[in-house]
Amino acid sequence: MAMSCSGTNAYHYGTMKENVISLTCVLPSGAVIKTHNRPRKSSAGYDLTHLVIGSEGTLALVTEAILRLAPLPRHLHVGLATFATFQEGVQVVVSLQKLGHRLEALELADGPQMHCVNVSGLAPRRTFKEMPTLFFKIAGPSMHIVQEQVSTMQHLCKAHGASHVEITHRQDEMDIIWGARKCMGTALLAMKKDPTDLFLHSDCAVPISNLSRLVAGTQRLIAEASAANQASWFCANVGHIGDGNVHSSIVCPEKHYGAAMGVILDITRLALSLEGTVTGEHGVGLKLREALVEEVGREGVEAMRRVKRALDPNGILNPDKVFMLEGEGGIPKL
Amino acid sequence: MAMSCSGTNAYHYGTMKENVISLTCVLPSGAVIKTHNRPRKSSAGYDLTHLVIGSEGTLALVTEAILRLAPLPRHLHVGLATFATFQEGVQVVVSLQKLGHRLEALELADGPQMHCVNVSGLAPRRTFKEMPTLFFKIAGPSMHIVQEQVSTMQHLCKAHGASHVEITHRQDEMDIIWGARKCMGTALLAMKKDPTDLFLHSDCAVPISNLSRLVAGTQRLIAEASAANQASWFCANVGHIGDGNVHSSIVCPEKHYGAAMGVILDITRLALSLEGTVTGEHGVGLKLREALVEEVGREGVEAMRRVKRALDPNGILNPDKVFMLEGEGGIPKL
Repeated sequence: MAMSCSGTNAYHYGTMKENVISLTCVLPSGAVIKTHNRPRKSSAGYDLTHLVIGSEGTLALVTEAILRLAPLPRHLHVGLATFATFQEGVQVVVSLQKLGHRLEALELADGPQMHCVNVSGLAPRRTFKEMPTLFFKIAGPSMHIVQEQVSTMQHLCKAHGASHVEITHRQDEMDIIWGARKCMGTALLAMKKDPTDLFLHSDCAVPISNLSRLVAGTQRLIAEASAANQASWFCANVGHIGDGNVHSSIVCPEKHYGAAMGVILDITRLALSLEGTVTGEHGVGLKLREALVEEVGREGVEAMRRVKRALDPNGILNPDKVFMLEGEGGIPKL
Repeated sequence: MAMSCSGTNAYHYGTMKENVISLTCVLPSGAVIKTHNRPRKSSAGYDLTHLVIGSEGTLALVTEAILRLAPLPRHLHVGLATFATFQEGVQVVVSLQKLGHRLEALELADGPQMHCVNVSGLAPRRTFKEMPTLFFKIAGPSMHIVQEQVSTMQHLCKAHGASHVEITHRQDEMDIIWGARKCMGTALLAMKKDPTDLFLHSDCAVPISNLSRLVAGTQRLIAEASAANQASWFCANVGHIGDGNVHSSIVCPEKHYGAAMGVILDITRLALSLEGTVTGEHGVGLKLREALVEEVGREGVEAMRRVKRALDPNGILNPDKVFMLEGEGGIPKL
């Protein structure tokens, strides 16, 4: 919760930010506060709920949370569609949004990502086509409405060049398709050739209109770096595509840490140049502190630091996470 | 924006909070910050966007905002349904939510509110039934989907005792129905018997599950007070019912200010006892500062005050709005 995490459900239901109504927190002073009461909306004072969500444990300890509930999805269908290029999958998402449809979930993986799903043996099927693959869920209050969205997706995928479209309502088949999506993070670890190999990944998000550019640029950056390192890296992309959030992963020998991290940071800078964020869901932590300065500026970080000092003057909660307590050299005091 | 305002679209599209992606602000120090870049989701540092939205001008001056866009509603239908009691209208909303339908808008007005629409002459029709009336909009990506929701609403309204249901796709008829909803705030002013008469209203919101209790309690409080004041008050209720947000209005002679304001505060306390908020959308301002303390506690307000002091140490922006800068007597320092 403390980094407003999200996942495959965020596209439809929102991230942690959109689903927490109120928090009970212990402040560094020991004071216990409840940020809000229980209604869906409120304008009662500063939004301390959202201030704490995403503060990565630096402002308060959360002891209780009131969450917004949603009805369980009905008439669930799960589907996949394969494309010759990642871009074609992105175009389906763009078209879908313009039509005003909102599916339950929309995820896009590239060929290498599908390869490692097959190799890892973690998914219920090992014969997925190793091509860019769009995974989606469709649900709605009636079978009628759902069938209409199923037809729309079949049509859009075909119109954007899908070589294969599969949409199912059978539980065992849904488990197979979504099982592939679910195992992707762990499946990447199976690509380690040696236990000491590293697994690094980006967490950028950009406006949907810039997504194609992020993906094209990412593929170029990775291809160049892989070539320079004698193709000893395994690289893959998977995205919470409905949110414009893509994880580009690199599995490489430990000795290539510097070069691989350089590529991840180049991807991050590319996202910034496309009006994106350096972290869509995983937070800043220690590694993205400098990238945060590039994103919100020194004065933006200094405003955050002032809030931190106001609520935690002794710096007892997760010090130096998100930003350095004392401020980097050259950061102007407000 | 500074109080996260909302209206009839908030039920479907969210309030200002859910629709602002990023803000460019001038802080009291003169520093200019941009709170975020442009992607739909981000976990980059503290959520300064939401801190400023709802701060009622006390933390920063907003000079630029990046808003989330939504496709225009398609196949729009507008409807109304009349009921013998306000509660029956509330029950339609509760049933609808449980089914997982999300209409474009859902508003509920009581009989007196409909009376003043007719009397004011501000709506395109003056013959609305002066009964509790549910107003709603239905839209969707296809006529098929919309027709299904139209049927659902017809069925639910009838099932909950509606005496009249009218749903239309014709622009002139939609304008008439929604025109009645749009004029309700101004129509209340038409109930002044004298130019010096006062118009007071509450802005409470409660969880939907407690909405019936809020409305029943509000009607009782107002009936008691009206009786005590020789029925010289005009009282009406209209709610952004999908959000559990109800405005109870009182139009009364100026000399009754104290008594009428007492009723508004009693309604506010009733909302708090039902896990609600003292302000669903209009903000705290000056009048609800004490109610805010009742809602988030003294330590909650003190946390807000600390944030205020950190960003505006000289108190130059909208001082003493939302809470007193120096703190009320007895408020513990954190």
